[in-house]
Amino acid sequence: METLRRIIDEDDTKSGQAFDLTIQSLIFVSLLAFSIETLPDVPPWLLPWLQAIELVTVALFTAEYLMRLAVARSRLRFVLSFYGIVDLLAILPFYLALGFDLRSMRALRLLRVFRVLKLVRYSQAMQRIHRALLIAWEELVLYMFMTFILLYLAAVGIYYCERDAQPEAFASVFHSLWWAVVTLTTVGYGDVYPITVGGRMFTFALLLIGLGVVAIPAGLVASALSKARELETEQLKP
Amino acid sequence: METLRRIIDEDDTKSGQAFDLTIQSLIFVSLLAFSIETLPDVPPWLLPWLQAIELVTVALFTAEYLMRLAVARSRLRFVLSFYGIVDLLAILPFYLALGFDLRSMRALRLLRVFRVLKLVRYSQAMQRIHRALLIAWEELVLYMFMTFILLYLAAVGIYYCERDAQPEAFASVFHSLWWAVVTLTTVGYGDVYPITVGGRMFTFALLLIGLGVVAIPAGLVASALSKARELETEQLKP
Amino acid sequence: METLRRIIDEDDTKSGQAFDLTIQSLIFVSLLAFSIETLPDVPPWLLPWLQAIELVTVALFTAEYLMRLAVARSRLRFVLSFYGIVDLLAILPFYLALGFDLRSMRALRLLRVFRVLKLVRYSQAMQRIHRALLIAWEELVLYMFMTFILLYLAAVGIYYCERDAQPEAFASVFHSLWWAVVTLTTVGYGDVYPITVGGRMFTFALLLIGLGVVAIPAGLVASALSKARELETEQLKP
Amino acid sequence: METLRRIIDEDDTKSGQAFDLTIQSLIFVSLLAFSIETLPDVPPWLLPWLQAIELVTVALFTAEYLMRLAVARSRLRFVLSFYGIVDLLAILPFYLALGFDLRSMRALRLLRVFRVLKLVRYSQAMQRIHRALLIAWEELVLYMFMTFILLYLAAVGIYYCERDAQPEAFASVFHSLWWAVVTLTTVGYGDVYPITVGGRMFTFALLLIGLGVVAIPAGLVASALSKARELETEQLKP
Repeated sequence: METLRRIIDEDDTKSGQAFDLTIQSLIFVSLLAFSIETLPDVPPWLLPWLQAIELVTVALFTAEYLMRLAVARSRLRFVLSFYGIVDLLAILPFYLALGFDLRSMRALRLLRVFRVLKLVRYSQAMQRIHRALLIAWEELVLYMFMTFILLYLAAVGIYYCERDAQPEAFASVFHSLWWAVVTLTTVGYGDVYPITVGGRMFTFALLLIGLGVVAIPAGLVASALSKARELETEQLKP
Repeated sequence: METLRRIIDEDDTKSGQAFDLTIQSLIFVSLLAFSIETLPDVPPWLLPWLQAIELVTVALFTAEYLMRLAVARSRLRFVLSFYGIVDLLAILPFYLALGFDLRSMRALRLLRVFRVLKLVRYSQAMQRIHRALLIAWEELVLYMFMTFILLYLAAVGIYYCERDAQPEAFASVFHSLWWAVVTLTTVGYGDVYPITVGGRMFTFALLLIGLGVVAIPAGLVASALSKARELETEQLKP
Repeated sequence: METLRRIIDEDDTKSGQAFDLTIQSLIFVSLLAFSIETLPDVPPWLLPWLQAIELVTVALFTAEYLMRLAVARSRLRFVLSFYGIVDLLAILPFYLALGFDLRSMRALRLLRVFRVLKLVRYSQAMQRIHRALLIAWEELVLYMFMTFILLYLAAVGIYYCERDAQPEAFASVFHSLWWAVVTLTTVGYGDVYPITVGGRMFTFALLLIGLGVVAIPAGLVASALSKARELETEQLKP
Repeated sequence: METLRRIIDEDDTKSGQAFDLTIQSLIFVSLLAFSIETLPDVPPWLLPWLQAIELVTVALFTAEYLMRLAVARSRLRFVLSFYGIVDLLAILPFYLALGFDLRSMRALRLLRVFRVLKLVRYSQAMQRIHRALLIAWEELVLYMFMTFILLYLAAVGIYYCERDAQPEAFASVFHSLWWAVVTLTTVGYGDVYPITVGGRMFTFALLLIGLGVVAIPAGLVASALSKARELETEQLKP
């Protein structure tokens, strides 16, 4: 039992690493099969193969879940932990789909995408990101808040400038909010854009002020990440 | 009176925090109602509810304004302060609209959006942003200035390259300025873009030089913000 | 003479600052007049006013140039200096246009835009930017070089993927280069984009690698600028 | 022999620098000729000139390859080194094309683009980039991984929201992945974009979270590069 626990929970033994790699490959294969299934022109001969992959991966993920449950020091704690819930979400859609008709199964199938979160377990640097987020948390929340206010003001401003010239695209503050998001993130699809002189001058002023507010979080996270790394290096020193 | 002042102006008591939370919720509800009103297909049964929300929030914001006025140590100072003006702007459009006909009321209604600025009062980290802006002020002004020169040169350059090929989109330096803003901020809607070889080579050279100038302010604010944070941490230390 | 030199060359006296402000306002007015002239529908009554502004500003810039020439310690040096050339370029187009027919004058008029460079003289922080560029010079040249190689490889790659599907938009490596510039700077006008599976996968891989290369210069300049500022602060200390 | 080696391998002599500059010019001329050849409307009189340039550059690159082979201390090592392979790739397409018919030669010709990699040899700062990449390697891999997970989740999310409204553009998870790449890198061509309210809200949430993840690598490389520079400066000090 203790050996099994080491294989499943740790990655410092050869069999532990092999176990991790197997699960990761299974996740990848399972997600690939899921994606191929959504293609509009899947050749008919491929369908049984995709179903077979689904069956095998669900069986193995179920076995993994039961094993993790078996070796867990506290079963309830594992079930309610982040990884426990993710592992359950990865297999639940399949079992639920057995009891429903075909139409609602289609939506349930999409839930299989949560398997991608199982990959997170295997990225050792996740802890550093977590620490970096804690460092920059206060500023990030503040900027999120500022971003919302800015987006709202941008949406109302452009609504006022453009609603008469383009009553379709800027029909309400909510429609204008879509323009504000697409513009301030500099994505700029080109589906909505101001055509009046007033709207263009407003966009100009908005971009001068707004780009800074929206672009800053990336800088905050990057600097927090390098701080988190320094802290780790210091801890390793005697 | 002193108790009321503590509840309204400070957030270190339970009733003070409850008061702040109530006002914030009211602002949110009021802005939501305002946004829904702009929707082109509001169901008729919703309109009286939106008007009721407007009436209640204005009444409560008026009460808040009068209370703040009552507890202010110097009334004139409060009225002329940033928050005093914002609080007045949040209720003024409603009272002004009572005395006007319906058409101009429509524009006045938009002024209600200034209520979003009331939210700023409740973000404690506002002070840090203010300090960061002071640190980076000189560079920010300089870059604003550089950006304007660059945008102007970009507009004249593309005007010269494209005016013959696209006399509609690049009709004047002002029209070209719109292209310059959309391109240098990398929004790129796709409503105007160069089609001549000369215009494309000009865009190429411009982007190589220009992206740096436009993108730098974000870096400046981010580094100033981390400096402002360090200064705060130092002040807290004995 | 010495007093005149102080007024023109320095900004530590009241009359010196007034002189600077006058020239700056003249530059602004002159550029505004130039921009309005390019509008397709300038009302006829405005044209004599614009010509009057042009006459007055050129006369004053000529007077400024002659005065600077008069007070210069070494006349030849001033004429060949950066500011001397810029000052000459600001007035030369007007005098050259007198001796030519109307058609070529149109192009000469555009040269008036160089007046915007006269503004550079008045930005005291220009020195800091110059110092920052010296610090980051080596890296900037390296990245410019990397960017060119990357853009070229991107252009050839997409040319290979898309030339059969879109022979118009990706007609040659030069045409594809336009796509590479618009994509790697994330402007994304939407006038050319890959439609084949191969071209989209190539774009995906390119963006993952390329965004870093193109976006780094902004970071380099920002960090060099903060270093330049630190150096200045150290020099001021005793 | 030893003198020849110094000229070819080092750049500390005058003839060595002249040799380097000659090869660099040849690379540039060769790539320019290759690009011009792809133009759809090359004038017929230019074709023999382009072929002549190709012949001369291949002859000289072959001579260079043989000389490098001759002066190499270990011939096998040179042939298998990165630069040895690049040098071979630069001439191989020409010799292979002699033995094949015209159609497959067209694809082989494209391989000539690898000559651009020969330029890398001459950028002395390449070492610094290499060092910077080593410093930031762990974070970069982590972010690449995070980016893939995020792109996948984004693709599945938008597929779920938009597949009914736009069955053409969001036909499968793979089609949606193209949208995810174009949106999260803020390129935003405008060929695919969400039109449903659900899809737009999903895009909004995605951009708020996602921009940070995708934009961080640039910051990581920039900070690693400045660290690499500091390390070099320290090494030069006694």
